[in-house]
Amino acid sequence: MGPGPINCYPRVLSAMSTQLVGQYDPVMTGYMNETMALYRQVFMTQNQQTLLVDGTSRAGIEAMIVSCLEPGDRVLVPIFGRFGHLLTEIAERVGAKVFTIEVAWGEVFKAEQIEAAIKQFDPKMVAIVQGDTSTTMLQPLADIGEVCRRLDVILYCDGTASIGGNAFETDNWKIDAVSVGLQKCLGGPSGSAPITMGERYLDIINKRRHIELGIRDENHQAGQNSRIQSNYFDLPMIIDYWGDERLNHHTEAASMLYCARECAINLLDEGIDNCIARHKLNGDAMLAGVKGLNLKPFGDISNKMNNVVGVYIPENVDGEAIRHQMLHDFNIEIGTSFGPLHGKIWRIGTMGYNARQDCVLSTLQSLESVLRRNGHKMKLGEAVDAAFSVYGK
Amino acid sequence: MGPGPINCYPRVLSAMSTQLVGQYDPVMTGYMNETMALYRQVFMTQNQQTLLVDGTSRAGIEAMIVSCLEPGDRVLVPIFGRFGHLLTEIAERVGAKVFTIEVAWGEVFKAEQIEAAIKQFDPKMVAIVQGDTSTTMLQPLADIGEVCRRLDVILYCDGTASIGGNAFETDNWKIDAVSVGLQKCLGGPSGSAPITMGERYLDIINKRRHIELGIRDENHQAGQNSRIQSNYFDLPMIIDYWGDERLNHHTEAASMLYCARECAINLLDEGIDNCIARHKLNGDAMLAGVKGLNLKPFGDISNKMNNVVGVYIPENVDGEAIRHQMLHDFNIEIGTSFGPLHGKIWRIGTMGYNARQDCVLSTLQSLESVLRRNGHKMKLGEAVDAAFSVYGK
Repeated sequence: MGPGPINCYPRVLSAMSTQLVGQYDPVMTGYMNETMALYRQVFMTQNQQTLLVDGTSRAGIEAMIVSCLEPGDRVLVPIFGRFGHLLTEIAERVGAKVFTIEVAWGEVFKAEQIEAAIKQFDPKMVAIVQGDTSTTMLQPLADIGEVCRRLDVILYCDGTASIGGNAFETDNWKIDAVSVGLQKCLGGPSGSAPITMGERYLDIINKRRHIELGIRDENHQAGQNSRIQSNYFDLPMIIDYWGDERLNHHTEAASMLYCARECAINLLDEGIDNCIARHKLNGDAMLAGVKGLNLKPFGDISNKMNNVVGVYIPENVDGEAIRHQMLHDFNIEIGTSFGPLHGKIWRIGTMGYNARQDCVLSTLQSLESVLRRNGHKMKLGEAVDAAFSVYGK
Repeated sequence: MGPGPINCYPRVLSAMSTQLVGQYDPVMTGYMNETMALYRQVFMTQNQQTLLVDGTSRAGIEAMIVSCLEPGDRVLVPIFGRFGHLLTEIAERVGAKVFTIEVAWGEVFKAEQIEAAIKQFDPKMVAIVQGDTSTTMLQPLADIGEVCRRLDVILYCDGTASIGGNAFETDNWKIDAVSVGLQKCLGGPSGSAPITMGERYLDIINKRRHIELGIRDENHQAGQNSRIQSNYFDLPMIIDYWGDERLNHHTEAASMLYCARECAINLLDEGIDNCIARHKLNGDAMLAGVKGLNLKPFGDISNKMNNVVGVYIPENVDGEAIRHQMLHDFNIEIGTSFGPLHGKIWRIGTMGYNARQDCVLSTLQSLESVLRRNGHKMKLGEAVDAAFSVYGK
């Protein structure tokens, strides 16, 4: 019940134990095509180029940034938590000129702030996180997409922690490039990063297409423009591997593909709206519950992600001791935090397979027991009652 | 029965469907430590820094190269097949000055050739493949390790296609850095890249340690030297994540870790020597069998990898039609080839779970039927008899 990774859906685990077929076996390439179609639905997009990067969600982020930004390119990163810093970190290593604006941890940006910063810094790309688990905040994006389109700036969004549990509409919100991971609301393990790329983003990266030595021929030549700084994260080459030509690049991580495919099927079987509603319901129950434990939620709750809540660690208890007892006595993990919030808040997740009433109730009960035995004052039973009341019981 | 990926060992598939635990759960960190210890045995090394890169074998290669080489650094790549070209491709994108020497596809290098090239080009690193599936050749390495140590050059070896099915002794052969994948002789899926790093390699990359923004504190600061060009492949940060401090980097791909761990346990249960002997036996049987089919093996057989054989496509048949019929009529995949060998040879693997007598015999029988029905001349039954005779039957 931490901020992710979380327990996987059982059907996702089972999918991973499917036997492999060859890299170009029609079953395998059929699965690849199917996975593209499934993630178009997950991302709510018509983008043809919707595929997997083989690595953790961080691999997807790096692929999106390194394929687009050349040394010297200007990028704006609005930071509202740890994962904004990560975007700057990756962009700097690409050699980009990184401009940042920040709000206090626990807040989000208004579109006007982004617009003013774009006008000030004139970036090629705005790179922003949707849901930053470090602060539990969810950045509204629809207005920002509109601003970026109007000012002709590429908008890349890291939806790792939010997609599947919070609304995300790639095309309606005019977002040019998006990446996600499986280990949060999609209910899978870390290790595969679904991404989607719109035409404006593709126009830029396709100019950097550069076929690698060893597989060039008369139809596939080295490119003329600046080569993408990474071979592994070279998205035009990955696109050619996922496309009809099946031009060899990496060897697709088949088990993780089975898994990513199953995560998407599972989400679409439930229905995206239903799944978001389930995350909202269980997130609200957890929020009510922690208040019932006499704990104070962190940040601007009106912008809280559905799938995680931050709570201040009470002054009279040892936060790490509580986490230790939760894990070792009750086999329930709750999260610590990073940077300015380290030691100040816990983070409790309700996502994917764990966005369930029984998980919420047993976490609250266990936390009540542990807090009580550590001297924290609260009205016993109130947390569970508050959660039940959110469930309408 | 292609050159990899291949079918997985059943126990490896089962391991992947194990439920996840939290990223810093003692069970998870215990598994990480165990995996390090297991791969020290696989690599035959005492290197403390033996761990997984989360991505395909190509991710492991890129991590090894980008963490070590800075723009302008000199690297020597001896090329004897497609995957040598891949090493140059990755090193060029890092900004390194790449020097190459080549032998014809189907041959390997002598240590004297490497020594002369080192003296000519004065590289910081020699990057070389052990087994290049594109040509089926296995490069002897023991003498090259000795040369590199004497001339104070880092030796990095890509053992993706060979380790587990052919001898590889990191420490005895004085190899400074090695990467592998799971999808060849280790009998797993693509998606995790075990690597090992010796002291000489670590001395270089540790000088480039640079803690990322968002998790810095008084004890963890930005570095002073040139920053590694990739965040995802920054090995000092990955080392800190796998080390006692567990400094957050990516979220370890837990299912692939379970899988990599099981691949190693499986290999060590069988015994490395026994596993290599099994690959040799079945590789020899396949070699005898294809000769019995009146097919001519490719390249210098004395340097052939145990786990794959190349055979010339007979002039009177359509190579792709044969592959298609093998797959669609018999559900057996054999491989095509790359670059100068494309359309000239097939590649037939005997590796991991598929390095078995029944796989060899049924492949030979099916290939006999398909070749016969396509007009190829051979003595019927001879292939199976030749294989049986290698098995002493």
